[in-house]
Amino acid sequence: MSKVFSALATSVDGYITGRGPRPGHGLGDGGVLFDWYGDPRNAVVYDSLVERVGAVVTGRTTYEDSEMFGGEGPHPTAPMVVASHRPAPTEYADSERQFFADTIEAAIELAKELAGDKDVAIQGGITLTTAITAGLVDEVVIHQVPVLLGGGRRLFNDLPEQVRLVLVEASPAAGVIHLHYRIEK
Amino acid sequence: MSKVFSALATSVDGYITGRGPRPGHGLGDGGVLFDWYGDPRNAVVYDSLVERVGAVVTGRTTYEDSEMFGGEGPHPTAPMVVASHRPAPTEYADSERQFFADTIEAAIELAKELAGDKDVAIQGGITLTTAITAGLVDEVVIHQVPVLLGGGRRLFNDLPEQVRLVLVEASPAAGVIHLHYRIEK
Repeated sequence: MSKVFSALATSVDGYITGRGPRPGHGLGDGGVLFDWYGDPRNAVVYDSLVERVGAVVTGRTTYEDSEMFGGEGPHPTAPMVVASHRPAPTEYADSERQFFADTIEAAIELAKELAGDKDVAIQGGITLTTAITAGLVDEVVIHQVPVLLGGGRRLFNDLPEQVRLVLVEASPAAGVIHLHYRIEK
Repeated sequence: MSKVFSALATSVDGYITGRGPRPGHGLGDGGVLFDWYGDPRNAVVYDSLVERVGAVVTGRTTYEDSEMFGGEGPHPTAPMVVASHRPAPTEYADSERQFFADTIEAAIELAKELAGDKDVAIQGGITLTTAITAGLVDEVVIHQVPVLLGGGRRLFNDLPEQVRLVLVEASPAAGVIHLHYRIEK
């Protein structure tokens, strides 16, 4: 059974972008959130997460900040479903890697179909929080980067009620600690 | 030389209180942030931090939410300095454990004098963020509790610029992971 998870590089104060994220500068300014990717000691963790992904769900904000991923997706091979109340843009309408759904439930359902035996990865803080609120997320991996960014887009947004987690694994590594949480159901 | 640090129980989404913190309910509602205190495996970490503290700096919000600590302080023995632009209240004016200072700089300077050879602990997210911005904090310990609270008072507030940290130690324990960061100077 496919799992739904997120795995996002996040500052200690909870931001997944620097200040001023915008189209063409999706990660904002002064980004240091991905400095750890290059270290081979982190590659094991990162590659094993990438390997799990059969489809990605992303929000409209991330999609537009990322300039529609140029008709592709954030994952090297997996298709992407954009959860958005607004109509799908006509650009890249013929892309075989970009799908649209108008609710988070429909987006995750479609992503699970597309993922087959693999898992669904959620990108974007608003989309992740919406999906957690809907009870649709199984795991959250935080690549906690040792910096306070002080502003940007948050990993977690307001929730209507508290959600219990279980720490499955914590792996301190070079320039990052990988915190792997399971959501209690 | 005295260090200035904070060590606060914090949810994975960055809150140090539940929803609706207010006088008499300083930790808000639905608090689960301190469930781990009772476990002896956490006592070693917690007690060693308490032992370091020679004085506490707190903000006016925390002070009032905590009903002026009844003329005492949050620490069993250490005096407390309240950083507040507003005039000191007359209640408990004769307390030998409560002092007031009108800037964060003055509060930390006074706390260092009071602490002697011991360290200064900062309580309260606004006060901590102000002190970090002023370059006055050496270490931040986050007792990260496996819950998303979804609302409350935040550990970190907006910063004018990014601050680099170094992860000194990460100790996964029962119902909490202790993340010990040093601030790069």
